[in-house]
Amino acid sequence: MLEDKKQERISLETLGEFGLIRHLTEHFTIRHKSTLKGIGDDAAVLDFTDKTVLTTDLLVEGVHFDLSYMPLKHLGYKAIAVNLSDVYAMNAKATQVTVSIAVSNRFPLEALEELYAGIALACKKFGVDLVGGDTTSSQKGMLISITALGEAKEADIVYRSGAKPNDLLVVSGDLGGAYMGLQVLEREKEVFKVNPNNQPDLEPYSYIVERQLKPEARKDIPELLKALVVRPTAMIDISDGLSSEILHLCQESKVGCNLFEEKIPLDPTVIAACEEFSMDSTLVALSGGEDYELLFTIDQQDFDKIKGNPHLTVVGHMTDASEGTHLVTRANTKIPLTAQGWNSFESE
Amino acid sequence: MLEDKKQERISLETLGEFGLIRHLTEHFTIRHKSTLKGIGDDAAVLDFTDKTVLTTDLLVEGVHFDLSYMPLKHLGYKAIAVNLSDVYAMNAKATQVTVSIAVSNRFPLEALEELYAGIALACKKFGVDLVGGDTTSSQKGMLISITALGEAKEADIVYRSGAKPNDLLVVSGDLGGAYMGLQVLEREKEVFKVNPNNQPDLEPYSYIVERQLKPEARKDIPELLKALVVRPTAMIDISDGLSSEILHLCQESKVGCNLFEEKIPLDPTVIAACEEFSMDSTLVALSGGEDYELLFTIDQQDFDKIKGNPHLTVVGHMTDASEGTHLVTRANTKIPLTAQGWNSFESE
Repeated sequence: MLEDKKQERISLETLGEFGLIRHLTEHFTIRHKSTLKGIGDDAAVLDFTDKTVLTTDLLVEGVHFDLSYMPLKHLGYKAIAVNLSDVYAMNAKATQVTVSIAVSNRFPLEALEELYAGIALACKKFGVDLVGGDTTSSQKGMLISITALGEAKEADIVYRSGAKPNDLLVVSGDLGGAYMGLQVLEREKEVFKVNPNNQPDLEPYSYIVERQLKPEARKDIPELLKALVVRPTAMIDISDGLSSEILHLCQESKVGCNLFEEKIPLDPTVIAACEEFSMDSTLVALSGGEDYELLFTIDQQDFDKIKGNPHLTVVGHMTDASEGTHLVTRANTKIPLTAQGWNSFESE
Repeated sequence: MLEDKKQERISLETLGEFGLIRHLTEHFTIRHKSTLKGIGDDAAVLDFTDKTVLTTDLLVEGVHFDLSYMPLKHLGYKAIAVNLSDVYAMNAKATQVTVSIAVSNRFPLEALEELYAGIALACKKFGVDLVGGDTTSSQKGMLISITALGEAKEADIVYRSGAKPNDLLVVSGDLGGAYMGLQVLEREKEVFKVNPNNQPDLEPYSYIVERQLKPEARKDIPELLKALVVRPTAMIDISDGLSSEILHLCQESKVGCNLFEEKIPLDPTVIAACEEFSMDSTLVALSGGEDYELLFTIDQQDFDKIKGNPHLTVVGHMTDASEGTHLVTRANTKIPLTAQGWNSFESE
């Protein structure tokens, strides 16, 4: 769709790799004094006072994103946000990113400018410096590789492995929105195929569509926890779906868990969309993925500090490993939690 | 060629993303005490005493490598080596890498095991820890994204921008081998297409073929320079070709340069291959690329310290910017240096 075979505009070939990366990144500003050298040498040079947190992710067109409904600016923003989400899940402050892209040389320069406008917006919003990257041609479609760095004092870093029996299980925000947004977008794509002149009214779905197209990493949660003087015992971000992430925490911490169905936070528009699509909202929250909320455990003694906070919901508690991992339904029956997390190798 | 449509063996789909990354990385060992946490959480946690050096690269099948003659083990090794080369070009010590791969789910698991065997070999050889990564499916072929980290004292870090007029221009090892190795491999590929039963005799070309398939990053050069008490004034690694890298140094340092054709170090097998392929060996060294040698400048006062060192060759000297950038030929004529560096967007 975006492949411009006429090449009327400035082509990537004309700019070349060096010219292209310079053109795309020249307006980026450096915010952190820890960035001693950004783009422009063999490597960036950084200066961390505390411990360094490092995460990397690969996003592939046709596997992780669909350019037929994903605006490139949103894609750039999302690519940064989902990586920073992993930094925040360590209870760290995000500081730098690198962005590498592979694109067919039929992509017009304007398309990459849009992508980088989204990247710039995310860098500004989350206060991180773009310090490196690579641009190259691909044989097919677009691929984005991001590495994100952050910083934290060693005592503040939270791993997946620290949860203890009786710890409370807490989730930020609400769940299932990104997945239901995807359902709406996929439906509109099918409508578009049949009738390209149809103008979809996405207004009633704006919250869930935005959750899918422009997710926010929860930069505010580590800051909030610090302000509340709560150090989570274990933490993970919800990229795949609540059940799969809970199982990761339980496995790494060697504990069990009871998750209460009635406690799972759902936005009213998610519930409405689930009804419209005849989907079970609990299943959507458990397996939907891409919400990029944070899931963490806290000592019971810290409950009073978070009680009533509009950003945080206690959804269950950890148990002895021998008790297993369960969902306690509204009907008060216990059913084993299973991972329905996403596996890109299953898609053909 | 490597896409296994019969899927008789363990498929990537069966393992899934988590199972796959665990399977591929479980035998990797952690060598640095600066690696506080490697693979297995939302992010790695690192502890740098000095400044951090960070570089990233994207390698695309059909653009950067051809699996019809590139064994996967070599590819894994090369992918790490070419990234570490950028770390060494900062005069830093390489410490950690992350590796992300996108592959079609028709690649058999054994193919990825081979790739990771090469990655493991390089990690051992260069003494770096694999601390993170991502595996995902691709729509077509294989793509590898590497991020490499290193460490150096601030005073030891060498940028591209520090060269001064009269500094000597020095290159490690010899040039043009990787490019001529590629010519041999491309020729054999054409022969193979015509007669698949032909067994090529690559023995006479073993040095140059190895330069192409299994290049070594010059970890030894920053160590050697330290031992000789020489701090380069500017440095870059030779990934694209000597002329393009010289021009980068001149541009960043705002100086000119005289490069002497007769000084360019060439291995006898490179000269022999150039004769066989009717290519000009100087042009091959200037524009060939992929040698991953280090190119640096030193103060003239340091000449005695490096004189006669078998790893280092003085190939020219820097001048005032107003004098321009020139190649001084064997016939003692001066011709302007031009960048013939590689541009992946030109390939179709």
